[in-house]
Amino acid sequence: MSTYKAPVDDVMFLLRDVLNIEQYGNLPGFADASPELVEAILVEGARVCEEVLQPLNASGDQEGCRRAEDGSVATPKGFREAYAEFAAGGWMGLAASPEYGGQGLPHTVAAAINEFSSSANMAFAMYPGLTMGAAAALYVHGSDEQKQTWLPNMLSGKWTGTMNLTEPHCGTDLGLLKTKAARQPDGSFRITGTKIFISAGEHDLTENIVHLVLARIEGAPEGVKGISLFVAPKFLLNADGTPGARNAVSCGSIEHKMGIHGNATCVMNYDGATAWLVGEENRGLNAMFVMMNEARLGVAIQGLAQSEVAYQNAAQYAKERLQGRALTGVKAADKPADPIIVHPDVRRTLLSIRAFNEGARAFVLWNALKADIAHRSPDKATAEAADEVLGLMTPVLKGVLTDVGFDNAVKAQQMFGGHGYIVETGAEQFVRDARIAMIYEGANGIQALDLVGRKLPRNGGRAAMAFFGELQQFVSENEADEKLAPFLKALGKSAGHLQQATMWFMQNGLKNPDNAGAGSTDYMHMLGLVAIGYMWAKILKALHAKKAAGETLTPALEAKFVLADFYAQRMLPETGAQLARISAGADAVMALPAEAF
Amino acid sequence: MSTYKAPVDDVMFLLRDVLNIEQYGNLPGFADASPELVEAILVEGARVCEEVLQPLNASGDQEGCRRAEDGSVATPKGFREAYAEFAAGGWMGLAASPEYGGQGLPHTVAAAINEFSSSANMAFAMYPGLTMGAAAALYVHGSDEQKQTWLPNMLSGKWTGTMNLTEPHCGTDLGLLKTKAARQPDGSFRITGTKIFISAGEHDLTENIVHLVLARIEGAPEGVKGISLFVAPKFLLNADGTPGARNAVSCGSIEHKMGIHGNATCVMNYDGATAWLVGEENRGLNAMFVMMNEARLGVAIQGLAQSEVAYQNAAQYAKERLQGRALTGVKAADKPADPIIVHPDVRRTLLSIRAFNEGARAFVLWNALKADIAHRSPDKATAEAADEVLGLMTPVLKGVLTDVGFDNAVKAQQMFGGHGYIVETGAEQFVRDARIAMIYEGANGIQALDLVGRKLPRNGGRAAMAFFGELQQFVSENEADEKLAPFLKALGKSAGHLQQATMWFMQNGLKNPDNAGAGSTDYMHMLGLVAIGYMWAKILKALHAKKAAGETLTPALEAKFVLADFYAQRMLPETGAQLARISAGADAVMALPAEAF
Repeated sequence: MSTYKAPVDDVMFLLRDVLNIEQYGNLPGFADASPELVEAILVEGARVCEEVLQPLNASGDQEGCRRAEDGSVATPKGFREAYAEFAAGGWMGLAASPEYGGQGLPHTVAAAINEFSSSANMAFAMYPGLTMGAAAALYVHGSDEQKQTWLPNMLSGKWTGTMNLTEPHCGTDLGLLKTKAARQPDGSFRITGTKIFISAGEHDLTENIVHLVLARIEGAPEGVKGISLFVAPKFLLNADGTPGARNAVSCGSIEHKMGIHGNATCVMNYDGATAWLVGEENRGLNAMFVMMNEARLGVAIQGLAQSEVAYQNAAQYAKERLQGRALTGVKAADKPADPIIVHPDVRRTLLSIRAFNEGARAFVLWNALKADIAHRSPDKATAEAADEVLGLMTPVLKGVLTDVGFDNAVKAQQMFGGHGYIVETGAEQFVRDARIAMIYEGANGIQALDLVGRKLPRNGGRAAMAFFGELQQFVSENEADEKLAPFLKALGKSAGHLQQATMWFMQNGLKNPDNAGAGSTDYMHMLGLVAIGYMWAKILKALHAKKAAGETLTPALEAKFVLADFYAQRMLPETGAQLARISAGADAVMALPAEAF
Repeated sequence: MSTYKAPVDDVMFLLRDVLNIEQYGNLPGFADASPELVEAILVEGARVCEEVLQPLNASGDQEGCRRAEDGSVATPKGFREAYAEFAAGGWMGLAASPEYGGQGLPHTVAAAINEFSSSANMAFAMYPGLTMGAAAALYVHGSDEQKQTWLPNMLSGKWTGTMNLTEPHCGTDLGLLKTKAARQPDGSFRITGTKIFISAGEHDLTENIVHLVLARIEGAPEGVKGISLFVAPKFLLNADGTPGARNAVSCGSIEHKMGIHGNATCVMNYDGATAWLVGEENRGLNAMFVMMNEARLGVAIQGLAQSEVAYQNAAQYAKERLQGRALTGVKAADKPADPIIVHPDVRRTLLSIRAFNEGARAFVLWNALKADIAHRSPDKATAEAADEVLGLMTPVLKGVLTDVGFDNAVKAQQMFGGHGYIVETGAEQFVRDARIAMIYEGANGIQALDLVGRKLPRNGGRAAMAFFGELQQFVSENEADEKLAPFLKALGKSAGHLQQATMWFMQNGLKNPDNAGAGSTDYMHMLGLVAIGYMWAKILKALHAKKAAGETLTPALEAKFVLADFYAQRMLPETGAQLARISAGADAVMALPAEAF
């Protein structure tokens, strides 16, 4: 049986000491979010996640969702009650606009709560998570009337939301989509088609479900330029805004999946469902991107979240499991064997997970703060600069945190030996659940391509230059500090590899785009390693400042010095191999004819 | 739905052109195994695997094994018939001694068939696989009478075998085991205790099951020096050798596992079961090692096998799935989109799997040939030298082929996008099945420790020196050949890293064993990369020789030039990062107190 304890203290350290959120009092929502209030929110959020959501994680996986003959879908036992409590606590609209009933708190705080809920019960957390993605798209692209109609009940959790993009023959390439929208005299549309892999497409948690759907209006151009976004609720609304007649959208089946069994992944059949256009005609993809960028940060957090909970359980087991003796002599003479935590390879494994997690958590919050600045800063240039860096880092967050998060769940499972393969232990569920995060909201190969093909060259590489500049400035300002120098030296070496790789792309990617494609995944991971390394540098600096101020550090903070060393010695060197692979280019990769595969 | 085609041609190329098995005609079994006969065996074995075993792979996973109230266990539908056909075909005792009904063929051939059957249906292949491991232990350590009693029916597949080592509180550290053996006046023993994770512990495939069990004879010393090996059949034998009375050993439950659902993983209860000592008293671990070394090679093959079948299905999908357009312009203008095989990142992923698989297959067969030489060479020095290198490489095979095999199954799953997460596609089963291979028969961390702690330093490092010497000789003999030079240069660089790492261990591992432990997994993978690189060098040489002889190469052989380039450019550079991690030593790894984890 797995357990989970939300890392409230670590988040508070990062918000207060590393990101200095108190200095952002000029942003809406931040002035009201004093450190004391944020801590109180995190503590209560942690309680809900630990006590309400986590106990349903294994049972939800075992039971799964069931579709009845009539197309209704039952979520696992306990999910309804847990959802009601989660919604009633105001956890869904934490960072959403107060105008529509949201709490208006910083995204930075909501990101932390997202990590907690995804660690506690990823399948559950997807119901509110997708709702917030759909709400974000409506908020940006919906008409005032649409926002008034849908947002209050979504932000309160009374209704949930979905995103309907994928069709059997198209996922990444939405230009191929076939779902049709027929214009009606009253300005509404009738939608017909089949959507697959629709998370939370049907369930019994709420009285209504708000579907956002991509479809092609009759007569619209082919390809991505003919796609529009629609809102189509499960139940049409009565004049008083309450759910009325059933709309012609239904769950045809639920998928048998590797994991996230507690979330209903549906085939959705639209049989002339009534829907309304959201935003401009034929600009649906644009509107969907709002939702997807929000969702990508959420998926990145899922990767971190599974890595965190997997670590916690593996570390606990390693401290308890007695097996063999330390290489350097008996450590627990009073016991029949030493706990396996005495073994260097066990520690190496656990430290590699934790050094990633704690750096990745900083990276998530650093990016969430960029989102807050981008959305809320009164200074347009500041907002745009933040948005550009966030745009650059979104594929990195999504690709790296989910790839490594999954690897870490696998490593954590390994700590249990044979017991890790047994369902009841819980470690294998983290692996199965974490696996989807590498795939959905744009498979990680697509993230890598988005990074090197679009985000990196955009505006003449301005975002990357801004990030490199910030990093370089940090190094310059601190390299004379002998406490930071060893770490900064290792980081500088990897940053140098990153700049060489960037240069290599500039010189070779233009003349042959396949050179960029062949190195894209390595580049994404390299940028992730350096960016998380930068977070570790900021963490180290904050720790030394606390010490210099005479504070006594907690053992968890003291451990960060070792984790930073580990990161520098054992994780950053990978950039050398990545640079070698990137520089190899596309020749061998593209040499074979397709039929030779 | 997955498909599978056994790589018969590749095996034949490796056996004939790379390993030159015709030159081993002096070994028993080899003279009779002409290339033509071997090919005929492989073709027929491939047919059985493709047509009989593979069609049961997904259904076996879905259905799993079921234990009835009476403790009997039903295997999935079709397994009984498939097993009967497999046994009747003589596939079980392929390489076993003709003295007891085996076919006496080279292990090298059996290893290839093992790969085919594990690719086709890993859960199924474990039933015969474990039987052969148990038979090997009986063959080496059993009395003549025991061999006569048990081996013929095991080698024919009439009965299966198991290994009973693990108990709830001990897996790796068998010194802790509690199962008791009480000596009886007639020389037999009564065994009492509980064993867990017993693969094929109970099933309905055969009329009897031969359990090999580790237990402690009453009064024996504590720890590993008091463990003995016993044979305890499910049914005691009548005087005529047929199964008679039920023995007091039964399946208490079957485990709920992440994968290999078609294999019954049992909790076995011994309630005074009648058993007979195998080999010497208190020397059970010694006897078990025979079984475990055999099994480790088998598990390594499982890693390769899942990687291979995962590759085949992913490559096929990538050639068929239409999505997006090539970065370099439309490739399939007549279709709504290009097949995803046009994308460099897709190719990079597939090539990384295949470059590993084809090198790893050579490495498996090269080692299997060492096993043949070790067991069969009339020259003692030759046999011992082969055995030493095989001993060195056994943990590398097991650790590297299963770690990378699993990673490759994950990569292959990624090629399917969202469809890869759906059970019906089949890709996720390969991931779940492959996962166990990293754990059982000694978790991979233990393999790494066995390598750096025992196999590497044994006899003054003789085995490693022999391998390095062989590799160096190959490089010296061929580096002037300009066709081989680029590859040998890359290989030489990685081999240099390996030698530096070895030296580092010699200098730092003795004064602090934790330094060796902290680098053990990286070292294991480094040795694997170099050894498989050596295989690629041998493959390249064989290919150039064929070309020089005027042969026209098949497209599959032509592709190997590209795969070797890929291996040199994109896989070997990892040794640089591995060396950096190894050289970092144990300081950061061991710095934290246990409670800080």
